[in-house]
Amino acid sequence: MERIEHHACFGGRQEVWRHASSSLGCDMNVGVYLPPAALQGQRCGVLYWLSGLSCTEQNFITKAGAQQHAARHGLIVVAPDTSPRDEAGRLGVADDPCYDLGMGAGFYVDASEAPWSAHYRMQSYVAQELPDWVEAHFPATEARGICGHSMGGHGALMTALRHPGRYRSVSAFAPIVAPSQVPWGRKAFTAYLGAQADRWRAWDAVELIAGATERLPLLVDQGADDPFLAEQLRPQLLREACAAAGHALQLRVHAGYDHSYYFVASFLGEHFEHHARGLG
Amino acid sequence: MERIEHHACFGGRQEVWRHASSSLGCDMNVGVYLPPAALQGQRCGVLYWLSGLSCTEQNFITKAGAQQHAARHGLIVVAPDTSPRDEAGRLGVADDPCYDLGMGAGFYVDASEAPWSAHYRMQSYVAQELPDWVEAHFPATEARGICGHSMGGHGALMTALRHPGRYRSVSAFAPIVAPSQVPWGRKAFTAYLGAQADRWRAWDAVELIAGATERLPLLVDQGADDPFLAEQLRPQLLREACAAAGHALQLRVHAGYDHSYYFVASFLGEHFEHHARGLG
Repeated sequence: MERIEHHACFGGRQEVWRHASSSLGCDMNVGVYLPPAALQGQRCGVLYWLSGLSCTEQNFITKAGAQQHAARHGLIVVAPDTSPRDEAGRLGVADDPCYDLGMGAGFYVDASEAPWSAHYRMQSYVAQELPDWVEAHFPATEARGICGHSMGGHGALMTALRHPGRYRSVSAFAPIVAPSQVPWGRKAFTAYLGAQADRWRAWDAVELIAGATERLPLLVDQGADDPFLAEQLRPQLLREACAAAGHALQLRVHAGYDHSYYFVASFLGEHFEHHARGLG
Repeated sequence: MERIEHHACFGGRQEVWRHASSSLGCDMNVGVYLPPAALQGQRCGVLYWLSGLSCTEQNFITKAGAQQHAARHGLIVVAPDTSPRDEAGRLGVADDPCYDLGMGAGFYVDASEAPWSAHYRMQSYVAQELPDWVEAHFPATEARGICGHSMGGHGALMTALRHPGRYRSVSAFAPIVAPSQVPWGRKAFTAYLGAQADRWRAWDAVELIAGATERLPLLVDQGADDPFLAEQLRPQLLREACAAAGHALQLRVHAGYDHSYYFVASFLGEHFEHHARGLG
């Protein structure tokens, strides 16, 4: 593992690390923010951030304004890249020319179908390998929260629902709540998981809510002027699933806000408060 | 003029406008943040932000986290591009393949030398045309502050010193305080203003301090681990010039911080407090 960037920021340090991922069979870049408390020797809880389509580890760490909140609450923030990468084409990582499949579009699942299954194992990476790596190499406790945006909002909700006991808090911005029912998700799941839609249920937050054995309260923010709202995001499906299952959901729809990091930044402080409560 | 982007952000709206500049002979992109107070019909003071080498209007508006502070203090923030632009090559705007001359490197001067003098009139643009345009088209008062980073820090200090009475507050992050004495400035000034160094004095903050007829207090933040500190920035020259002239300067050197927007974001809130005091 190698530290490829480091910048003092709000009294802590924003770092970017490159490490070899066994789940993905490639090197991965990960943003790690260490708050002042961590630099002073305290062990800190960790908030995992999963980014959206076409993002790398850079988008969130440069645009969201997260560091001020992490510094204030004493949380480490870990923001990985969104898929296996192989820009030089040496590793045989499958790709697709579209922005919504292949590199930059891992959808946080473990692919079962060729050619994707060889490398696209983002669920194993974010839910197991990455926390193991973080907790081995940084001053982290085992208190974990998870949050994300759009495809990463899907990733955060679905990953927490699949792993009861592993996270203490979960939230999302403009998540793809029901990938099985919307074009982005159907395209990616058909490629990664195969055309049989019954295999998709285990990777879809709206499908997982009914049978959840842990009911962490969900905080979800959504912009009312998000251009993807009606076709790709459909938060009403999450509202209905949570109501049917008795799963606590705070879904806030904000007039005028779109899908950008200007929206994420505006409400990220409140998500940190939510996670800081969960992580103690 | 045309609004080419708009995003709700912290209760206000981050916009990007394109307008025809007569000073520069080209269209210019300008970031304009309207705080909630402005959207509610109040006239607000304006903070002008001048960016550094290679930046467009995008860097500051996406990376600095300025909107939260502007919203809190009720300030409009105006962030123009850093030079005339002509990416399509239709207007005959001179350029240079290096990042530190030509497009993206206007240095906020009015060039006197061919081929630059035809379009590179950034001082006329930022000090006169842009405020006139802002005050004609947005709910702005005539209370103006000016701030910037690196080349834009030079721009902010120098522009305020050249125009007594035009600004109520001034500050800078990692400014090029003495362009006449450092490689970046000497290269740009030789090209834009000619090789006779006596012509450079009117565009150099350290040279202007002695004869200033208005003594707005200067707030300057500098990272101690900035890789450009010793060769290009040299804040000690500003400290000495201010001491000799009795010009108030708060120069803060921050251990561990570099030249990036991670540094700017960390201290930008305090600059907004400085400007909010100045702008009333």
